Amino acid sequence: MKRIGMLTSGGDCQALNAAMRGVVKALVNAAEEVEIYGFLEGYKGLIYGNYRMLTGADFSGILTKGGTILGSSRTPFKTIQEPDENGLNKVEEMKHNYYKLNLNCLVILGGNGTHKTANLLREEGLNVVTLPKTIDNDLWGTDMTFGFQSAVNIATDCIDCIHTTAASHGRVFIVEVMGHKVGWLTLNAGIAGGADIILIPEIPYDIDKIVEAIDRRSKRGSKFTILAVAEGAISKQDAKLSKKEYKEKMKNYKYPSVSYELAEQIKEKTGQDVRVTVPGHTQRGGSPCPYDRVFASRLGSEAGNLILKGEYGFMVGIKNREIIKVPLEDVAGKLKMVSPDASIVQEAKMLGISFGD
Amino acid sequence: MKRIGMLTSGGDCQALNAAMRGVVKALVNAAEEVEIYGFLEGYKGLIYGNYRMLTGADFSGILTKGGTILGSSRTPFKTIQEPDENGLNKVEEMKHNYYKLNLNCLVILGGNGTHKTANLLREEGLNVVTLPKTIDNDLWGTDMTFGFQSAVNIATDCIDCIHTTAASHGRVFIVEVMGHKVGWLTLNAGIAGGADIILIPEIPYDIDKIVEAIDRRSKRGSKFTILAVAEGAISKQDAKLSKKEYKEKMKNYKYPSVSYELAEQIKEKTGQDVRVTVPGHTQRGGSPCPYDRVFASRLGSEAGNLILKGEYGFMVGIKNREIIKVPLEDVAGKLKMVSPDASIVQEAKMLGISFGD
Amino acid sequence: MKRIGMLTSGGDCQALNAAMRGVVKALVNAAEEVEIYGFLEGYKGLIYGNYRMLTGADFSGILTKGGTILGSSRTPFKTIQEPDENGLNKVEEMKHNYYKLNLNCLVILGGNGTHKTANLLREEGLNVVTLPKTIDNDLWGTDMTFGFQSAVNIATDCIDCIHTTAASHGRVFIVEVMGHKVGWLTLNAGIAGGADIILIPEIPYDIDKIVEAIDRRSKRGSKFTILAVAEGAISKQDAKLSKKEYKEKMKNYKYPSVSYELAEQIKEKTGQDVRVTVPGHTQRGGSPCPYDRVFASRLGSEAGNLILKGEYGFMVGIKNREIIKVPLEDVAGKLKMVSPDASIVQEAKMLGISFGD
Amino acid sequence: MKRIGMLTSGGDCQALNAAMRGVVKALVNAAEEVEIYGFLEGYKGLIYGNYRMLTGADFSGILTKGGTILGSSRTPFKTIQEPDENGLNKVEEMKHNYYKLNLNCLVILGGNGTHKTANLLREEGLNVVTLPKTIDNDLWGTDMTFGFQSAVNIATDCIDCIHTTAASHGRVFIVEVMGHKVGWLTLNAGIAGGADIILIPEIPYDIDKIVEAIDRRSKRGSKFTILAVAEGAISKQDAKLSKKEYKEKMKNYKYPSVSYELAEQIKEKTGQDVRVTVPGHTQRGGSPCPYDRVFASRLGSEAGNLILKGEYGFMVGIKNREIIKVPLEDVAGKLKMVSPDASIVQEAKMLGISFGD
Repeated sequence: MKRIGMLTSGGDCQALNAAMRGVVKALVNAAEEVEIYGFLEGYKGLIYGNYRMLTGADFSGILTKGGTILGSSRTPFKTIQEPDENGLNKVEEMKHNYYKLNLNCLVILGGNGTHKTANLLREEGLNVVTLPKTIDNDLWGTDMTFGFQSAVNIATDCIDCIHTTAASHGRVFIVEVMGHKVGWLTLNAGIAGGADIILIPEIPYDIDKIVEAIDRRSKRGSKFTILAVAEGAISKQDAKLSKKEYKEKMKNYKYPSVSYELAEQIKEKTGQDVRVTVPGHTQRGGSPCPYDRVFASRLGSEAGNLILKGEYGFMVGIKNREIIKVPLEDVAGKLKMVSPDASIVQEAKMLGISFGD
Repeated sequence: MKRIGMLTSGGDCQALNAAMRGVVKALVNAAEEVEIYGFLEGYKGLIYGNYRMLTGADFSGILTKGGTILGSSRTPFKTIQEPDENGLNKVEEMKHNYYKLNLNCLVILGGNGTHKTANLLREEGLNVVTLPKTIDNDLWGTDMTFGFQSAVNIATDCIDCIHTTAASHGRVFIVEVMGHKVGWLTLNAGIAGGADIILIPEIPYDIDKIVEAIDRRSKRGSKFTILAVAEGAISKQDAKLSKKEYKEKMKNYKYPSVSYELAEQIKEKTGQDVRVTVPGHTQRGGSPCPYDRVFASRLGSEAGNLILKGEYGFMVGIKNREIIKVPLEDVAGKLKMVSPDASIVQEAKMLGISFGD
Repeated sequence: MKRIGMLTSGGDCQALNAAMRGVVKALVNAAEEVEIYGFLEGYKGLIYGNYRMLTGADFSGILTKGGTILGSSRTPFKTIQEPDENGLNKVEEMKHNYYKLNLNCLVILGGNGTHKTANLLREEGLNVVTLPKTIDNDLWGTDMTFGFQSAVNIATDCIDCIHTTAASHGRVFIVEVMGHKVGWLTLNAGIAGGADIILIPEIPYDIDKIVEAIDRRSKRGSKFTILAVAEGAISKQDAKLSKKEYKEKMKNYKYPSVSYELAEQIKEKTGQDVRVTVPGHTQRGGSPCPYDRVFASRLGSEAGNLILKGEYGFMVGIKNREIIKVPLEDVAGKLKMVSPDASIVQEAKMLGISFGD
Repeated sequence: MKRIGMLTSGGDCQALNAAMRGVVKALVNAAEEVEIYGFLEGYKGLIYGNYRMLTGADFSGILTKGGTILGSSRTPFKTIQEPDENGLNKVEEMKHNYYKLNLNCLVILGGNGTHKTANLLREEGLNVVTLPKTIDNDLWGTDMTFGFQSAVNIATDCIDCIHTTAASHGRVFIVEVMGHKVGWLTLNAGIAGGADIILIPEIPYDIDKIVEAIDRRSKRGSKFTILAVAEGAISKQDAKLSKKEYKEKMKNYKYPSVSYELAEQIKEKTGQDVRVTVPGHTQRGGSPCPYDRVFASRLGSEAGNLILKGEYGFMVGIKNREIIKVPLEDVAGKLKMVSPDASIVQEAKMLGISFGD
């Protein structure tokens, strides 16, 4: 008999349910007796002992369902170690609930922040298996995270829609794509959507290079230019600022996001009308795409397998198309960024896409 | 032999190409010799004699293509009667080009503003047939405009995506839907997306009623509330302002749009986290949905039929599922709004949807 | 306090859940105390007293869900009046269960066959309200049925996909569309998908006219021809057969369906390669499109309203964009067919589409 | 100055246009003077000197367009070496046209058969670069082929649609998925669509194991079972037949495809109603998914790069997420099959999916 706690933490994304279904199916099909404790709203549920027992029926029909049946919340790593408003030690409460329920292990689905806390729990002696969930694809140790490809699809749809309008009206359009501090999502959606300019955090931009690229298109007779801009895109000047200087600058930042600043600069320098579109949270919603469903199911199934074998302390990821296990201590706190020298970037440049550098 | 001028004016939308294809197919299949002069970028093309000859091949494969192969531009009615920067009288130039090319008629695809100018050209003696293009569905004299249903689909997709995130995170989400000064798009996307609160220009809202609706949901155990807010939504107080007072107020308006003001108010009054999503121009892009393709093809085909019969001065529309012709002078300058007493509004209220009134 | 029985009968389709949700929301929001008895698998559930109590929670989140949460089954009208294998009188059993549960009324969602039985139950004294569910759109008394537009979308997607292949390979492609004995679905998907030839039951075809249309396209340089063929399409010769003669013919029919017979004939007469695609049951599956969600929600809401007012014996339908009630005795047993003279058919012909007549 | 011939051969698929656009963009952006000769309808165009000159404009806007702007045809390898009906030596004609046009190289997009011919042309001394196009993903030497993921999406959509109907009606449903002689497409669509049973050519099935799996589901209370069946699925008995015996058997095969035979057997052995759906050619149609657009663009761009460097005789593929070049002689004639021991198969089994083995 296995007693498994499960929780989803951080921003939600597609295929969370598919992944959990995979874990549970693998355990149940191994004819293990298994009890699933679903902690509600991420680590909060574990801290405050807020859970519900889940049965096979809870996992039926959720392969295609977006969001998470457990709910989620953001519990930043740095606040995890601080006491809550009533003075409770959160880490101790999580350990307390883990032992009180006599759990064999915790299955934790989340992104970067989530993995830091998961690793902390491992260090504190809990058995933990994690699954790499994020539309940002920024988790170290795995080629891919689930949610990413579904988010690429939505962001690309958005660029596709803008494309027809842009072609009809002849303007500059900026589509601001999510991705937190990394450029994977923007890079892929930008190439897929046929963006002319792609700006990502890893390759700081020079506004003059952007203007040049737009002018080059105008001269060639193209009436419109589409920019796919990562929410974390940054100019060369800003990239040179110290963390403190940057914070200072952002205090008085008058734009809702970098795209609006860019829009103003481009308008000023080219005289062209610029429109900004921000698909925002839609990028993490809706039904997971088939790629993510297969991928999350495979991950979940292998996570179940690890639990059956009693191997804990790993994130289940993918490397060269094979599902792998990665020690949690290797994952926690590391970002997987786009290298400016990555072949996909060079290929995009060969296609004529400008990165503003 | 018929010589037909054609142009698309105003914001682009889905099925413009499908409609033009319909007109041309109907003319060509009637074995009429026909020459199509496609004026580029809306009325501008007619004013400055900027056109290209179109053949059957130009209309092949465009049934499913978004945007407009002719390009478009916004030429507000009030500027049409003013001379351009070189002192040219725009109306005279349009007449001049019409007669110079010896056209039998103009086929004009556009929305409200476009129809005012089209009617002016009719009054000036030109033969005009128009087609009702707008995602706003605000054209008087027709039950439906093409582009509308495709835009409903995109806005609904957006609400669907937000739904999974909202359900996972438990917040208030606002999706701002296009529609200019009318609520058709928001009303339909809101019902289709399962929004809890729908705000449209025709039913000014009371912020306290909105807060009540959110609180009622919280009390019933619903962790999230989704608002579909028309870009033209207006509060009861603002609706009472004179046009001048309102303009004065908007001068110092600090929000990018009404949704952001609402978000702030809701946050303040409920303490809940509020997120705003603005799908924006994506709502007018992408491939037309099958409904719009059929509808635009029918309209185009009947417009071709009118031209074959030499009946001019009409907008081709739909009434009770039959394609009809409506005198241009009846259409121009009139808005079709959502009546607060419309049965669809009452039905939405029976479903438990609040309109904040 | 209202006690409502509910069942879905016949082939399933999109928006059944949306419609039921509408009914229940309208009743619950009217602050009526209401008990919902969901009979499982159509009339079978009512006959054998197989039901489960439904609460608001059962209707949460099902607006976008395909299929029916109650299950369905086909119970042909002619078998309803026959005793079952154990000698039970089915009609009496249904009445028995209705009275035993002390129901105020039955809400029945279904198509043509379903409505005959519903009307029989009305004649037997039960309170009945029905909702027009079918992808065929063949119900008399309503402009539209829910499921139809969603099925049009799927069939059109299918033609769209075939279009790219057809254009690449230069063959004749047949897409067989559902619709039972009427042509609505094929007609709309055919126009939306840009089919060159549309064959529907209401307009019997002449194979030679089809071959002519294909040859005409070849001569004009078109390398491919796409036919949208209704599953009920029929040749002029077959249409002249008596019911008995036709039955006799079909006994030895060697093709899986009419499309395969057509394919063989076209291949023989034109020498061209012909491919058949049969999307089949996919046309009734998947999430309802926004149009159907709005429409089904409106119908459900007005059905709830009728129940609140105690008005029974009606199908809730739509006429000229307004929701209406139609006496069940007027609906039962009548088909709504495509008139060969309908303006939409004439418009399709003006577009150059051949109906093989 | 480079003179490049280009052709697409075999069954069409998604992202052919995206890949060609990639090649041309890479060449043009390298500021090379380049002439593109697009041979029409595959090798036929090269044999008969049927081509058209392509400019940048031909590649504008085709990133998202399905099919191939060059047309395609199937020219089986074994017929390539036979003279045509007029006695022409096809290989010599291709060489003749290559040299007559003074080409620097041929870019050939195709699947297995195409690669055999491409390799032959290489052996004959022509400069050849190929791109791996097929929805079957069966090309040796590359982890992935373009078209595959788009086809997975369509097949999965189909299973999704069937899922709602199956759940409503409680039957056995078979969805027959393409893939030629390999199971990649069925395996992925089956997992993504939540199929209960997946049958692929690489794992011959035992009908009794299938029946067992269906019965096991029935006993657990599941009212339906969905099978994803590869068009090349084969029973254990048939797999044991010699090639000659199998051919003999298929001569008198009375079913349109294996799914219909299975349907009859399952019906006979379980008594349950079985429905077959064959999405067929739709799986190779429609707009490429974002994954395929990015992948094909990357491949095209690297193919352009090889041409610029004058490196010929390679297929451009992907290995461990990096674009690679594979000698054509290593690729030609080899199939990449699903290993029954592959981890993805084991993971699917852990999820409870039966492979009928």
